[in-house]
Amino acid sequence: MLRAIRGDVLHCIADPAWGADPAAVETLADALVLIRDGRIERIAPAAALLPQLGGGVAVDDWRGCLIVPGFVDAHIHLPQVDVIAAWGAQLLEWLQRHTYPQEQRFCDVAHARESAAFFVDELLRNGTTTAAVFCSVHPHSVDALFEQAERRAMRLIAGKCLMDRHCPPALADTADDGYRDSKALIERWHRRGRLGYAITPRFAGTSSESQLQACGRLAREHPDVWIQSHVAETRDEVAWIAQLYPQRRSYLDVYDHYGLVRERSLYGHCIWLDDDDRRRLAEAGAAAVFCPSSNLFIGSGLFDLRAARNAGHRVALGTDVGAGNSYSMLRTLGDAYKVTQLLGAALPPADLLYVATLGGARALGLHDAIGSLQPGRDADIAVLDPAATPLLARRTALRDDPLDRFFALTALGDDRAVRCTYIAGEPWNR
Amino acid sequence: MLRAIRGDVLHCIADPAWGADPAAVETLADALVLIRDGRIERIAPAAALLPQLGGGVAVDDWRGCLIVPGFVDAHIHLPQVDVIAAWGAQLLEWLQRHTYPQEQRFCDVAHARESAAFFVDELLRNGTTTAAVFCSVHPHSVDALFEQAERRAMRLIAGKCLMDRHCPPALADTADDGYRDSKALIERWHRRGRLGYAITPRFAGTSSESQLQACGRLAREHPDVWIQSHVAETRDEVAWIAQLYPQRRSYLDVYDHYGLVRERSLYGHCIWLDDDDRRRLAEAGAAAVFCPSSNLFIGSGLFDLRAARNAGHRVALGTDVGAGNSYSMLRTLGDAYKVTQLLGAALPPADLLYVATLGGARALGLHDAIGSLQPGRDADIAVLDPAATPLLARRTALRDDPLDRFFALTALGDDRAVRCTYIAGEPWNR
Repeated sequence: MLRAIRGDVLHCIADPAWGADPAAVETLADALVLIRDGRIERIAPAAALLPQLGGGVAVDDWRGCLIVPGFVDAHIHLPQVDVIAAWGAQLLEWLQRHTYPQEQRFCDVAHARESAAFFVDELLRNGTTTAAVFCSVHPHSVDALFEQAERRAMRLIAGKCLMDRHCPPALADTADDGYRDSKALIERWHRRGRLGYAITPRFAGTSSESQLQACGRLAREHPDVWIQSHVAETRDEVAWIAQLYPQRRSYLDVYDHYGLVRERSLYGHCIWLDDDDRRRLAEAGAAAVFCPSSNLFIGSGLFDLRAARNAGHRVALGTDVGAGNSYSMLRTLGDAYKVTQLLGAALPPADLLYVATLGGARALGLHDAIGSLQPGRDADIAVLDPAATPLLARRTALRDDPLDRFFALTALGDDRAVRCTYIAGEPWNR
Repeated sequence: MLRAIRGDVLHCIADPAWGADPAAVETLADALVLIRDGRIERIAPAAALLPQLGGGVAVDDWRGCLIVPGFVDAHIHLPQVDVIAAWGAQLLEWLQRHTYPQEQRFCDVAHARESAAFFVDELLRNGTTTAAVFCSVHPHSVDALFEQAERRAMRLIAGKCLMDRHCPPALADTADDGYRDSKALIERWHRRGRLGYAITPRFAGTSSESQLQACGRLAREHPDVWIQSHVAETRDEVAWIAQLYPQRRSYLDVYDHYGLVRERSLYGHCIWLDDDDRRRLAEAGAAAVFCPSSNLFIGSGLFDLRAARNAGHRVALGTDVGAGNSYSMLRTLGDAYKVTQLLGAALPPADLLYVATLGGARALGLHDAIGSLQPGRDADIAVLDPAATPLLARRTALRDDPLDRFFALTALGDDRAVRCTYIAGEPWNR
């Protein structure tokens, strides 16, 4: 099965290192992306490649649009579909007031299925082709999500939330049940097509030491699954965790103690870390997930991306819906830029592109499969229209520079700018 | 000329005082707003009023939409139409690198006219019916803007930028020329229809003491014109102004010394004020203009809205395009909310509505004419669709509460949510 996509190619093939490595970005104006059996086979100038194509090859004409790798949203919550844009409260109160009530609705399988279908379509409408997703405590919520992802041939990582204390009884599992349910889900879903499982303790505040031990055991028994959790999101939370685990050096050290800080482990927020924590993430090959819209919307604080880059640990970007107020990775990048500006160091356009694509893929350990448009990669692609609104059209006409256009899309764009999303070479039909 | 608009009315009739006064907000589901000769005559339940209307009255059916007062954008720059979404730099470098080069293009009358038409249409597309606008140093830029506003019968306040030092020679006026040109513009435009003039010294860094003196003289000679400028936007700027005016207690005191702090004076940013400054603003009846998107986009800092409200001075909201990255007051409110969350006090939905409508009108001293939908006010109206996107539709279906819907629009909405903008009772056709 052969398909070709025509437009202006823009992708990262390496870490731009805060603008220091211009060769990290590849651009090709009016290019043809040739796709065979769901993978990228070749990229070449359209003028050169078109004459060589046989008549039977469909050419999708997106001239004037940017062809970029599909976005990687490395932190998002399925059961918070209906929490988004809830008013007031910071993290610990937010969980009690807004989140737990909605998560309880997921005991209903039909609600979980309906929500999962909406959720996956919102991701795709926004050009997100891979996500790492927290499901609810109910194993069927994972089934519901993976069924929807599989139906769309989408690459997705997800896991059942583990929490056995400090939460409503209806949402609590136990260390044993959580272990057993997670294990069954791993066996059912992990590496089935493009799906992957993540061991998902919500955070150290809602898991007992026994549960974290059980998570560590799961992690040892399944060295290639992902791990995802939250760390150091707000100061109040950090203080509470210090009370719960007085014997641990830091909040991150709680997870580390149970063997949960390693490659393919994804820690949401990482705002209130110190340099020892950052070094530990780097050494372990673990990743921080920067969730700027969420961190602003519920007032958690400012993630220091430059400190993270200096420490050399992996960083991905997450929308963190529902505390985040947008499924759009473009809008999330707009907020990421604002956070770096508030901290006195504007994130360069190449690094904005990187953190939402190849940087995310690296954090997930999936950079050989996704995150760039290099030959052999999955053809997970977003087509971005730099003229999606009158304002974008005027702004992006000023300079004929794909990276500048991408930057303008992060400042001014949203789901409208995503003209098409390809999943393994097939256009998703909204 | 009679017209009726049908929908869910939502407006402030007083200051909600950080949620303390629920009676400050009026709502009426399925209401009819009756408009005669460009003014609001009456609001009543549609079921009661419809039978009383004669057959000749046009009824615009916006059932399911919110009918709110048109937004008041109290700080925006016409010559920065093409600065928006420029990458990098904080204020002082931003002016040199991005702003001044674009402002120089305004020496060309044709460019000024074309930009003004686009600019005014963007405001209206976003439901903004009144704005206070900085034009370029060229008097013809004011003519260009007012001509476009007049053509659309829009209420607009604007002024020629005054700056006679620390700027490119092509953009510098002199104290005398600036005085004379401003005076001629006041005579030509002030109180012509719904237009108003603002004496517009860019900021204390680019005006000599002679120029500020000339501004003070203009202000005395024309006690009913507006005054607009910038104050205390960044720490570097504050330090620089302290060097330039060592004899003044504070940055705000520079303007005060020249008689420029009074009613109908609008000071953009006001981030780095102290409580004495805030008291002085309150005492003088002057207003701070909170520009959250700009303050985040160029990393200026966080405006402390609660301190402002505690001091009792007026506060309006501004997009500050082009350092602000959106013409949408909904998106600007979304950023305002995030700033208040970062400072630990979530702004209530009623106060979000207030600062963008009646609060802005009060800052401008125009609350008898605009900012609410009370009888006698100009029929400047925005029609907001709470189901403008699939996500908004899902979110706003959860609760049948107009204020909650408005809040969701500030978190999730943008220009798409503005279904129609009425100017003095007439729908603007995009």
